[in-house]
Amino acid sequence: MGLKEACGIVGIASDTDVSYEIFTALRALQHRGQESAGISVFTESSGIVTLKGMGLVTEAFSEEDLSEIKGNTGIGHVRYSTAGESSIKNAQPIEMHIVSGMIALAHNGELVNAESLRNYYKEKGWAFFTTSDSEVIIRLLSKELHDGRDEVTAIKDVMRSINGSYALVILINGRLYAARDPMGIKPLALGRKGDTWMVASESVAFDALGLELVRDVQPGEIIELKNGSVVSHRTEVPEKSAHCFFEWVYFARSDSILDNVLVYDVRKRIGEFLAHEAPVDADIVVPVPDSGRAHAIGFSEASGIRYAEGLMKNRYVDRTFIMPDQKMREYNVSVKLNPIRSMIEGKRVVLVDDSIVRGTTMKKIVSMLKEAGASEVHVRIGCPPIVAPCYLGIDMKTRAQLIASDRSVDEIREHIGADSLAYISIEGLVKAIGKDRNELCMGCITGEYPVKIEGERLRGQSTLEEYLHF
Amino acid sequence: MGLKEACGIVGIASDTDVSYEIFTALRALQHRGQESAGISVFTESSGIVTLKGMGLVTEAFSEEDLSEIKGNTGIGHVRYSTAGESSIKNAQPIEMHIVSGMIALAHNGELVNAESLRNYYKEKGWAFFTTSDSEVIIRLLSKELHDGRDEVTAIKDVMRSINGSYALVILINGRLYAARDPMGIKPLALGRKGDTWMVASESVAFDALGLELVRDVQPGEIIELKNGSVVSHRTEVPEKSAHCFFEWVYFARSDSILDNVLVYDVRKRIGEFLAHEAPVDADIVVPVPDSGRAHAIGFSEASGIRYAEGLMKNRYVDRTFIMPDQKMREYNVSVKLNPIRSMIEGKRVVLVDDSIVRGTTMKKIVSMLKEAGASEVHVRIGCPPIVAPCYLGIDMKTRAQLIASDRSVDEIREHIGADSLAYISIEGLVKAIGKDRNELCMGCITGEYPVKIEGERLRGQSTLEEYLHF
Amino acid sequence: MGLKEACGIVGIASDTDVSYEIFTALRALQHRGQESAGISVFTESSGIVTLKGMGLVTEAFSEEDLSEIKGNTGIGHVRYSTAGESSIKNAQPIEMHIVSGMIALAHNGELVNAESLRNYYKEKGWAFFTTSDSEVIIRLLSKELHDGRDEVTAIKDVMRSINGSYALVILINGRLYAARDPMGIKPLALGRKGDTWMVASESVAFDALGLELVRDVQPGEIIELKNGSVVSHRTEVPEKSAHCFFEWVYFARSDSILDNVLVYDVRKRIGEFLAHEAPVDADIVVPVPDSGRAHAIGFSEASGIRYAEGLMKNRYVDRTFIMPDQKMREYNVSVKLNPIRSMIEGKRVVLVDDSIVRGTTMKKIVSMLKEAGASEVHVRIGCPPIVAPCYLGIDMKTRAQLIASDRSVDEIREHIGADSLAYISIEGLVKAIGKDRNELCMGCITGEYPVKIEGERLRGQSTLEEYLHF
Amino acid sequence: MGLKEACGIVGIASDTDVSYEIFTALRALQHRGQESAGISVFTESSGIVTLKGMGLVTEAFSEEDLSEIKGNTGIGHVRYSTAGESSIKNAQPIEMHIVSGMIALAHNGELVNAESLRNYYKEKGWAFFTTSDSEVIIRLLSKELHDGRDEVTAIKDVMRSINGSYALVILINGRLYAARDPMGIKPLALGRKGDTWMVASESVAFDALGLELVRDVQPGEIIELKNGSVVSHRTEVPEKSAHCFFEWVYFARSDSILDNVLVYDVRKRIGEFLAHEAPVDADIVVPVPDSGRAHAIGFSEASGIRYAEGLMKNRYVDRTFIMPDQKMREYNVSVKLNPIRSMIEGKRVVLVDDSIVRGTTMKKIVSMLKEAGASEVHVRIGCPPIVAPCYLGIDMKTRAQLIASDRSVDEIREHIGADSLAYISIEGLVKAIGKDRNELCMGCITGEYPVKIEGERLRGQSTLEEYLHF
Repeated sequence: MGLKEACGIVGIASDTDVSYEIFTALRALQHRGQESAGISVFTESSGIVTLKGMGLVTEAFSEEDLSEIKGNTGIGHVRYSTAGESSIKNAQPIEMHIVSGMIALAHNGELVNAESLRNYYKEKGWAFFTTSDSEVIIRLLSKELHDGRDEVTAIKDVMRSINGSYALVILINGRLYAARDPMGIKPLALGRKGDTWMVASESVAFDALGLELVRDVQPGEIIELKNGSVVSHRTEVPEKSAHCFFEWVYFARSDSILDNVLVYDVRKRIGEFLAHEAPVDADIVVPVPDSGRAHAIGFSEASGIRYAEGLMKNRYVDRTFIMPDQKMREYNVSVKLNPIRSMIEGKRVVLVDDSIVRGTTMKKIVSMLKEAGASEVHVRIGCPPIVAPCYLGIDMKTRAQLIASDRSVDEIREHIGADSLAYISIEGLVKAIGKDRNELCMGCITGEYPVKIEGERLRGQSTLEEYLHF
Repeated sequence: MGLKEACGIVGIASDTDVSYEIFTALRALQHRGQESAGISVFTESSGIVTLKGMGLVTEAFSEEDLSEIKGNTGIGHVRYSTAGESSIKNAQPIEMHIVSGMIALAHNGELVNAESLRNYYKEKGWAFFTTSDSEVIIRLLSKELHDGRDEVTAIKDVMRSINGSYALVILINGRLYAARDPMGIKPLALGRKGDTWMVASESVAFDALGLELVRDVQPGEIIELKNGSVVSHRTEVPEKSAHCFFEWVYFARSDSILDNVLVYDVRKRIGEFLAHEAPVDADIVVPVPDSGRAHAIGFSEASGIRYAEGLMKNRYVDRTFIMPDQKMREYNVSVKLNPIRSMIEGKRVVLVDDSIVRGTTMKKIVSMLKEAGASEVHVRIGCPPIVAPCYLGIDMKTRAQLIASDRSVDEIREHIGADSLAYISIEGLVKAIGKDRNELCMGCITGEYPVKIEGERLRGQSTLEEYLHF
Repeated sequence: MGLKEACGIVGIASDTDVSYEIFTALRALQHRGQESAGISVFTESSGIVTLKGMGLVTEAFSEEDLSEIKGNTGIGHVRYSTAGESSIKNAQPIEMHIVSGMIALAHNGELVNAESLRNYYKEKGWAFFTTSDSEVIIRLLSKELHDGRDEVTAIKDVMRSINGSYALVILINGRLYAARDPMGIKPLALGRKGDTWMVASESVAFDALGLELVRDVQPGEIIELKNGSVVSHRTEVPEKSAHCFFEWVYFARSDSILDNVLVYDVRKRIGEFLAHEAPVDADIVVPVPDSGRAHAIGFSEASGIRYAEGLMKNRYVDRTFIMPDQKMREYNVSVKLNPIRSMIEGKRVVLVDDSIVRGTTMKKIVSMLKEAGASEVHVRIGCPPIVAPCYLGIDMKTRAQLIASDRSVDEIREHIGADSLAYISIEGLVKAIGKDRNELCMGCITGEYPVKIEGERLRGQSTLEEYLHF
Repeated sequence: MGLKEACGIVGIASDTDVSYEIFTALRALQHRGQESAGISVFTESSGIVTLKGMGLVTEAFSEEDLSEIKGNTGIGHVRYSTAGESSIKNAQPIEMHIVSGMIALAHNGELVNAESLRNYYKEKGWAFFTTSDSEVIIRLLSKELHDGRDEVTAIKDVMRSINGSYALVILINGRLYAARDPMGIKPLALGRKGDTWMVASESVAFDALGLELVRDVQPGEIIELKNGSVVSHRTEVPEKSAHCFFEWVYFARSDSILDNVLVYDVRKRIGEFLAHEAPVDADIVVPVPDSGRAHAIGFSEASGIRYAEGLMKNRYVDRTFIMPDQKMREYNVSVKLNPIRSMIEGKRVVLVDDSIVRGTTMKKIVSMLKEAGASEVHVRIGCPPIVAPCYLGIDMKTRAQLIASDRSVDEIREHIGADSLAYISIEGLVKAIGKDRNELCMGCITGEYPVKIEGERLRGQSTLEEYLHF
């Protein structure tokens, strides 16, 4: 909890105008990014037309905007906000004009070799407009297309050059492609209703539009979406995939199905396993709303300890209002979360949340519960200790910001003021997701990454025993 | 569910500037109204200064606004929106200049004799700026003060003239009064931290600021709040109070304590009683989020049927975006609520919500669940059938808009497409609240009102048996 | 130059919808006020409907707003801005609900007895919503109407009670009245096209709509405007009127005809008379744009000295942008006005402007011209020294802000750094306007006012000789 | 009159922060573009930082924005608006990241070979972000720099490749360059105060900041601006320059000095020559404000016919407000310009404006004057008939939109309803500017262009006689 969220992408090919459908799909993916939103549609008259705006999807586009871009094929993007660089120039999709027409591309993920690719091509004389990974990808694609590759081959070649996490939707003039990195780090699903085909970061986008989830785009797969059909192209991919486990733990909506696994089920199972791995004698199980709710329900069912919504979330405080001094900033916390004293008072509370990153919010919540009269607060966390940075798309870039990077569990427990603290084990997490551990990217909890990163270990180079020392 | 919300008020007397505290309290009461917000503070230099703005509290005021009004005593208001008359001129507090200085007043409630009072005084030569109940109250108060009454007597006299529901905060120059109607229809609570005293529509405002809930303002009570003390003045009041039961069922936040009763507890007990009154053989209990959650938890615990968050709410769609045609409007519903197919499919579902007003939303939700594969959908509602209008502050003004006003439960069941439908009984509701039935206003579910209303029955004029025929 | 501007009002009775016409008329009167704008229309369905907004007329109303208020009779208002109290609550028209329906009123002017009337009626028990003169007027009118007067009599009675400057447009339900104070201090003209009748602060409003200027509303006259006819009602009025001379000198647009006199002609004649009263040997006549242009043309023609647009005004700097430090504030001046060096260098310049209030801007302009190489700068001012405050509608409330209140002409000349300085004489001004001096209000230049003001002399109490000592 | 305006650019090197100075200079150049504004500053910490925003300069940037970008070297741009493509993505400066750092560039002008260059490089494999000329220039520059040219050589090489009109300011990391096309089509001047050096489209930018106009940047010149010095580099340039004559006629501010010639003087001389070339017996000379004022003063002085400001411009209607129907659009015209009847009535009027493009506005003005009672209206125009498109930066792209492209002067006279119509002769225009005719670009009035344009004649290919047939 407390992480910046990922981006969301969508692509659709239909036999009618698609701007409202992209808009609706982006609203369903709104939780993946609230900074900016963009839509590119291929129109008969003007080629690819791209609209972008700041804020929520409903703020970024007016009804008039949507009604003006008419076309049967298009892509969309919602972007998360990182402090200090919130600007329309970072909004996607990104467009390029090349000799054969126009390209638009939207990207969710992070390349580990973007900088070196950019430098390599700068040395070759390229000038870049931005410092974004997305420009690197669209420029490489432009080059491949120019070099005479057919479109699918061009995309394959780009995928061979870039390294990292990516889910992509690409318009090349009126043709729509989707691609997922060879390890399937970022999610991407395929949906359908009649002749309309769609890809989206999460299946909830299909639910909002009445489409059926057909399957996930496979790691390393390229899909061309047309009105009426899809064509799949596979690149050669590593034996093992590396789905980001954090999607199930925190990023995705509970009602999404990622790589065949319903997010809600994972979260609930994590709660169940936590109850078995770290049982505790307590009176009530209280979730941190909304992120810990499914985990808490699982813990309650498995432990037989009563589930209670003992922390109330003010649903109107998502938007930030900067308060001028310390007292005011404290009000900002208390106005957001409120413990129900009569449910908490004198109770031994199991407090369940999805994860701990910096530990500051959890410390405040434990303190709130104690002030509300909790006799004991036992914290149970649905994600193993985060000990290492993420280089593949999550906004945790340095060990310094991770409380677990240099503290033992007991030190953290003391820091947050809990009576006990337990994290789900890596094994428990893996089992809850229901994948093989070698199918997951767990770099941030193991320090071993599925792709080579300077100064870090590669997955498979260490043994399980090592992890357990964290 | 689906009702417009009530207003929220707050008043505070302290020994330091109070504008940030009023602001924070209004954020905690934001669920009671999102159309506009207003703050009046008594300043040494300029007397009462009032700021108002449209939208959420954080949109209505800038940090600069707040820092500019300095004073130790003040009041605040958040207003709900009704279609077509959303305007700054309806925002409160309302101000008046009289011979002895300034008055500001904020009001939550609805008078049944505002029109006749306004007409009476118009006949006497008064000119009114607005058609609001609040102006009637502040004008009567101005008159009483002018006629030489001391402030408390003046307020008492006004309370004798006006009839209906009201919670009031009143600034008379630098003096702060709070008052509650003689039947206690609208909530108003008293809180304290050190020498700071505060009243607010709900106790969650105190929680946000670290104040302690001292007690409720009593029906018919007038309280003068000073820095360091409060003085209570009682008017003669009817034997029986008439707290609006709907505050516990829907309006108030679950974490508020109204008239000594925690809202969450009432909702959960309603769920428990529903499980006993209308048991059903089913697989899962699913709440309509967020309004039916506590009720559903109670139903689950009492019935032993598993609780499941099978409907997911998109937390970014509170703000309306008007879609241009029917297809788009349907997207608007599906983008807001999404059933989790794998949790629903093949299951017998108990669907729990707080209330049914028009029935349109419930019909869509039942249909969603059926489409998601529910084998049976049993609807359980935490409020008896709403058969009559509210004249005392809830936006249900005509029987025509109430599905239960002229349909039997079975007809409603058929309309919404459920396999079974049960409402909590009036007895169950009363028991869940834990008050005597004569302490509650249940006009909308009994057709009998605690105050005389032309064409409607007065509470006490009929027997319980009559209700049961609805 | 540098004064805050006056308000503008308009009223129209037609046989078609009038909201666009009011809107257009207010745009033509935009120079009289840019803070806020308001329109009230009498609609069949909802009685009087009032819209208000902040900023320019085109910012205050959307096209949608205008198309939604349908009615054949209406009034409008533009308001000027005074520092620190810019707020929608000061916007006009102001509305009241009385026993016989609704009233809306818009007012240009200032009452000298508003405070005492407000206090008198507060003592009688009235409560006031605002501290505005306009509320005093509409409340008195409401009282008169309630007391059984017919509408014209009621307006007459109000006019007997209030003292000061006022031009009024009044909607009483669907009936439209216009009234002008008994001395005709503020302007108000009557226009017509076919059956459509209109009043407006200046005749330019008629020009914009293709109406013909019929005549001015007479001092003390009340006119009822109907579709197809007007009815005039005269109150008893003082023998002598007191038109504000400043309207011709500065406030009104050059193309307006006020009380039968074209503003441009007055300004040009003032320039001519200045050339005769204070001749100077010089090379070019340069106006301060745009306020001094007509005066300068007159000076040039009468003196035979060449007219030159030697100061250029940046037409994009009307809106204020607050600069953070002194250097930046100086840029703010130089970015607004720029002398053309090659026209100025080595030249003896006659610099002409309409008036000097504080003297700060004139000082900067003289300095600019000297820096641009002017060998001499001779300042000629189209308004006699302003030595006393205005109590009747102009934002010059204290002698302290008036450079001429305690300085001789030569002291002012030295202060602004000019080689010579001359003001038009009072005789010259009067002659340029072409009215009898007893038909004009010249309080601010004579210290004698047409209405009794505590601590000031009444017009007629002194002799002409006294003025000449200033 | 009625043309879209040109862009404005500025570049500055100083020993203190320059963001406020760029901001102020852009305000002085605001008349050259109101759609968007941008500022790039080289900062120590982050390299080149670019801010852009929509609207006026004061709307595009907040004071906070300006105070946050600290650096001693920077450039700025204001952009004009063309219908339908008003968007932040067209705002300048444009930035690129290359191997040796960052470049930012702002451009005023239009290339005639941008499309072919873009196509050439697309064929070579380049991908373009935009379809703007500016990207072509910065991309070519990036290439030259990459190919190892020193910066000045790189700029020279780019200037050899591109063809058309351009004034450029370029930041290469912390170094600032300015360049002007080899024919000097677009203006660019050099200013100085102490060690601060600046270039700007017009000298009024220097006036606003207290800098001295040093000289114009020469056709084909590249200047490096440093704090304390400038270095000039000349490219080989054609014998003859081709300054756009329209800058003196319409685009530039009257108080600017372009290529040593004060704009006001040119306009006034044009008026004088018009009086001699096309004398007329008339009563008054009336300018179309503000564009025809200087021309009219010249006409008046030369003819001895009295100058009169007989058309009044409403200074609040620069911003467009789209009116819904024809009647309303007509109000839009009349609310903008108003003839003063008493000055016009019965008079023979010489109406003077700078130019006629489409003729629609002039037709309305003539009609206004006739309706105001003018007995005769003689139109005198300060620019010869515009008979051909501009390919070098003015928004007149097709002959179809030019009334003079296929009509004789007498046909135009009839169309606009004037009693007589005369345009300044090409000879008169040239003489008024005071340059040799071969130093001017007069493509739009001669059909002969200084650069080769497909389907058009090159300057020098025809004889003067040909022009006279138009």
